[in-house]
Order: sequence, then C-alpha cells, then structure tokens
Amino acid sequence: MALVALKFINGSRLFFHRTHIPSNSRTIRAFSVIMSPPSTAVVYDLHGPPDTVTRVINLPPVEMKANDVCVKMLAAPINPSDINRIEGVYPVRPEVPAVGGYEGVGEVHSVGNAVQGLSPGDWVIPSPPSSGTWQTYVVKDQSVWHKINKEVPMEYAATVTVNPLTALRMLEDFVSLKAGDSVVQNGATSIVGQCIIQLAKIRGIHSINIIRDRAGSDKSKEKLKRLGADEIFSESQLEVKNVKSLLANLPEPALGFNCVGGNAATLVLKFLRQGGTMVTYGGMSKKPITVSTSSFIFKDVSLRGFWLQKLMGIDKANESRKLIDYLLDLARQEKLKYEMEVVPFDNFHIALNKALGKQGSQPKQVIKF
Amino acid sequence: MALVALKFINGSRLFFHRTHIPSNSRTIRAFSVIMSPPSTAVVYDLHGPPDTVTRVINLPPVEMKANDVCVKMLAAPINPSDINRIEGVYPVRPEVPAVGGYEGVGEVHSVGNAVQGLSPGDWVIPSPPSSGTWQTYVVKDQSVWHKINKEVPMEYAATVTVNPLTALRMLEDFVSLKAGDSVVQNGATSIVGQCIIQLAKIRGIHSINIIRDRAGSDKSKEKLKRLGADEIFSESQLEVKNVKSLLANLPEPALGFNCVGGNAATLVLKFLRQGGTMVTYGGMSKKPITVSTSSFIFKDVSLRGFWLQKLMGIDKANESRKLIDYLLDLARQEKLKYEMEVVPFDNFHIALNKALGKQGSQPKQVIKF
Repeated sequence: MALVALKFINGSRLFFHRTHIPSNSRTIRAFSVIMSPPSTAVVYDLHGPPDTVTRVINLPPVEMKANDVCVKMLAAPINPSDINRIEGVYPVRPEVPAVGGYEGVGEVHSVGNAVQGLSPGDWVIPSPPSSGTWQTYVVKDQSVWHKINKEVPMEYAATVTVNPLTALRMLEDFVSLKAGDSVVQNGATSIVGQCIIQLAKIRGIHSINIIRDRAGSDKSKEKLKRLGADEIFSESQLEVKNVKSLLANLPEPALGFNCVGGNAATLVLKFLRQGGTMVTYGGMSKKPITVSTSSFIFKDVSLRGFWLQKLMGIDKANESRKLIDYLLDLARQEKLKYEMEVVPFDNFHIALNKALGKQGSQPKQVIKF
Repeated sequence: MALVALKFINGSRLFFHRTHIPSNSRTIRAFSVIMSPPSTAVVYDLHGPPDTVTRVINLPPVEMKANDVCVKMLAAPINPSDINRIEGVYPVRPEVPAVGGYEGVGEVHSVGNAVQGLSPGDWVIPSPPSSGTWQTYVVKDQSVWHKINKEVPMEYAATVTVNPLTALRMLEDFVSLKAGDSVVQNGATSIVGQCIIQLAKIRGIHSINIIRDRAGSDKSKEKLKRLGADEIFSESQLEVKNVKSLLANLPEPALGFNCVGGNAATLVLKFLRQGGTMVTYGGMSKKPITVSTSSFIFKDVSLRGFWLQKLMGIDKANESRKLIDYLLDLARQEKLKYEMEVVPFDNFHIALNKALGKQGSQPKQVIKF
C-alpha cells in the first residue's frame, strides 16, 4: 500500500511525496512502521491575506521515525506573528505550503521506539516553538517537545511562550533590576504589557504604564491597576514639560519597553533615567522611533531590540524551558493572568477574523482542537 | 599688601575675594606663600555668542597650595564643545564667570611643597580635561596633571584628548573587533573621523566612510584614502536599494559611528550587520536619529551614545592616561595625523571666528600662548 503524504519543509508532513509502506507492516516486526493518525490542519499554499489564503484540510497519516513523537494538539493561539507569517511579511517564515501556528499545547498520542521521557498522555509544548501547531496531530522529533505540568490551564499552556516568556526575558536580559526599581512601558494593555506588570510586581519592581487615548481607557486603567500597575498614563496625560514630575515617589526607570513606536516610544524615552535602556519588541503604530542626538550623548540611553524567535534559536532554548515552567506555575496559581477567548477549531475562521481585528479589539483567540 | 584675586568655581582663581599676603612673605619661611604669575585669560561673564561674550583680560597671581602645580600653558584648541559651553547650551559647564577652554598642553612653571613627580619644565596635560585652559598660567592640584613626552608635537599634545581619545575609546569600548573586521562612520572628514580611520587601519580593521556631498568632496575622498580609508562614499552615492552591494569584499561592519544624525545616521544603520551597534557622538546636522522597529527586532541593532566628559569623570580616567600616551606616541611617529592651524594668542578672536564657522570650513584652531 502506498500513501500520499504531504511534505512541509520544517514540519512533519510530506506533500506530493510517495512513501512506501509495506501493506503487511504490522506483521513484519523488524520493519514495523508507526503511523500518526490523519490530521486536520489550517494550511496556506500562498502568502497573502490570512482569511483568503488559509483553508482547513485533512492531511493523511505520516510515518513516525524512532525519535518522533506524535502529539494530539489541544490548543493553539492566533498570534499577530502567525498572521504576519501567513501574509509573508515576517522575516523568517516556513516555505509554503505550510500549516499555520507557532506555539500551542498538546497531549502525547504515540512515541517512536527510541523516545525516552515522554509517554502517551503527557502534556507537551514545542519549545522552542515551531511552525505548524494549527492542526490536530503534529509529529516532530522528541527534542522539540517540552513536557509540562498538566495542572496548568490549557489556554495558558498554549500561549506561554510568545507573550509571557517575552515579558520575562525582557525583564531579565537587558538591565539588572532589583526590588524597588521601576520600569516604564507603552502598549501596556497588550498581553506582554500585562505580563510585564505582573512579573515586575512579583519582583517588587514598580511599573509605569502608557496606554493609548481611546474610549474605554478608564476601564483599561482600572484593569491594569488590579494587575499591579503602579502608574498608568494615557498618552495625552503626558503632554507636559517634564513627565518625570508625574512620578511622585517612584524612582526613574532604568529600563523601558516599546511595542508601539512613534510618540509612544518617545514618551518611554522621556521617562528613562540617565543611562537607561529602551527595548523595542513591537511597532503597533507602524511609526519609526525617533531619538535626539543628546539623548544618546548626554542622557546616555541605549536602544535595543528583542526578538524571541532569534533568542530561542540560539543558546537560550534550555534556559527558556525553566523560565516557561516558572511562568506556567504562576499561571496555575493565578498569579499570572490575561484575557483569552477559547474557540472551537470548527470556528477557526471566526476566530481568525477576530484576530485580524475585523471586530475591533478582541481578546487573544485560542483555538481548542 | 592685599591682592584682589578672581574666583572661578572649578578653576583656580578668585574673583572679588581679598587674600591677605604678607608683604614680607619671602622673609618669613614658616608662612612662605608661593604665588603664580599673573595670567592672561579668555573670560566670559555671561553665556551667549562666544564672539560677543568673551574677552581677554589679565588675572592677578593666585596663591598656590602645597599640592598645586602652576602650569604655563603652551597651546589649547578651540573645540565645538568649548563653544557650546560658552553659549550655555552644553549640559555640563562651568559657572560664570569662567575661563574658556577644556584641554591643552603646558609646561610646569612651579610646584607646591607637597608635589611629587612633577618638576618645572615638564610637559603636562589636564587629564581628565578640565575647564579653563585658555589662559597663560593655570594653577590646579597635581592630580589634574598628566606628564607627557616632550617629543610630541605641541599641537597634538594640546588636542589629544577630546578628539583622538574619543575615536580610540569608541573603537575599543563597545564591540570587540579583530583584524579583518570593518567599521562604518559618517562625518568621516571630522578629526574624530580621521582618527578612527587611522586607528582602525593600525589594527587591521577596515573603514567604510560616509561624507557629505559638497564642493571639494573628491579632494576629501583622496585625503581620507591617503589616511587609510578603505571605502569612501558621499551620501548621494548611497541612494541605492542595497548599500551593502557596494562593499565588494569588505565584511559587513559590526560597529558604526554617527556624528551627523538624520539621513547620514540611517546610512550608517543600513551598512551595519545583523546585531551591529551604532554609537552616536555628535549631531552636526541637528537632525534626530530615526530607526525602524524592524531594525531593532529583526536586525537586532543596538544604539548607544558616547560622551567623553562622562567617561572621564568616572572610572576610566587612569586607563585613559595610558591610551593618551599611546595616542601621543602615534602622533610623534606621524602615524596619527590631522590638520590644525596654530594661531598666536594675540589673534584669539580671529581664531574664534574661524572656529565659529564664519569663514566656512577651517582646520581645527589651536591657540599658541
């Protein structure tokens, strides 16, 4: 019997590639072959608008190698970077045709003969995250999978890497902070922003938060306050000569985070203390960052960038698994919280449209398989 | 006899302050007082346009303390930062009334009783540099003065700190470079720029140089080439899609220097390799630096600033004296060269006008006392 499998460049399945499977494989032990179940997947053959180019299709079973683990996916989010990968505007992206998604959580379904330390029923996440989580079964080498505590709420396990790990690494990797210090950030209502507030709070670090002026900003302020934010300003409140005069007793921050750009980035810089560092990890306004010469020379600010995908690709992967365990433990204890909407896989395109912003601001969409 | 001396806050002389000097001081050994000679100085009582607010006046002798050294100044440059201090736009500046100037070289004239290691006739520079070098005699604590080799051309000794030391520290302090690497800079015709070219060359480091489009830019290119520049582009030559395609065999630079801002800073960033660092040390165009979000996130550039005055004020002062000796030795061997115009002190205001740019581009003006 010959199966047509589907090939994905950095995934698991073979497109248009014939694999010979002996029809009597189960009876020939020495050459026995384990096959994954068929998978239902969100696939795109071309880059373009995600609502146009993605479709949900069935992929046939794939052959599992000795070190492979087949994972039944439980949940996976739709992150902005997933959308950018499908659009083809992300600097590193899988070759098409590809299955969407980059992080998620699943349950081990079956393991290859040489797999150790993972058994059916275990919960795992791909760590570093990798492409192709928007499908019901994923087959990847055992090294891809990180076993996690099953007591963690599924939607937090599905989303722990791209947002909370970014927040934690940015708090830890750039400036050595101690209790009593403060940080400043724009885009504070984003999930990364909410995580920064909570993770800083746990460390005794104060957060100064900048949000956009828009309807409902008072509600946003209350919400961030409940998460532990020390100060929250809308951009218009910061149209003053000396923003630092608004800080009352908080120390000037040595570290700032920018995910907006334009004026919102300038405001972060204004709060920074002499010698401070601003880390850019997003550009929601699509405006560049503009800095005066004197900020560099006389205020001695440093501007850096953060990209989780690069970090995870190098030497930080193992260390990051420990941080993920820490973050998941916080989520289990409800010390790390953010809003999500869990959507059945059948409603994928509804969730995708929400993630694309077609219905205004919406909580993070998490697909439940 | 009572002398009227002049007080300078961080200098040596007392304004409007009466000091009692026994008229027969030379005969009373136990209370003998050493006085400096009177000094002729460039003084400003108010901040403002340097050609308006500065005047050359005579200052009376000052009393020398046991640790003081009186130095007969030989030469001192007019640097742009000197002008900014007089204008009152420099972030750290002496309180007025003040004597102008910040670096220079002099010969020890006399020493206090407790001074060790310095004798009349020695050549010294203030290191870290300090305010008040535009005068014929400067009295400061012995710790201020760094003894140098008298075989160094005087004008190089007078100018070694503000420009060449900036170039050297910027090459050494930010990125670890090795022979075969390259750096990129704008404002390459500045003295710092010329020093970077030569100091890089000595280390086997290639330099990519960006200069303004203006009459005489071909001549500038030839001059920089002779100093050892590998590549020299005028800004208009870099209006191409991929500036790196112009680099031929040079490696992409990991370090860039910006003293211009605006488009010229963007060009430096374009040349930088993934993970590269741009150091801003000036803003000749008076335009800010604008950077895309993706440069930070996906190209992982770092933006830093360099300010010699801050560096010298902290922990780098001793280390910097060794670097200064190294630089002076290069100047002595004619391995470090830049153009200067040595002007007699009598012509101070002519030199000042040239330094103010009133006669177009001019070589660095160095006052000879």
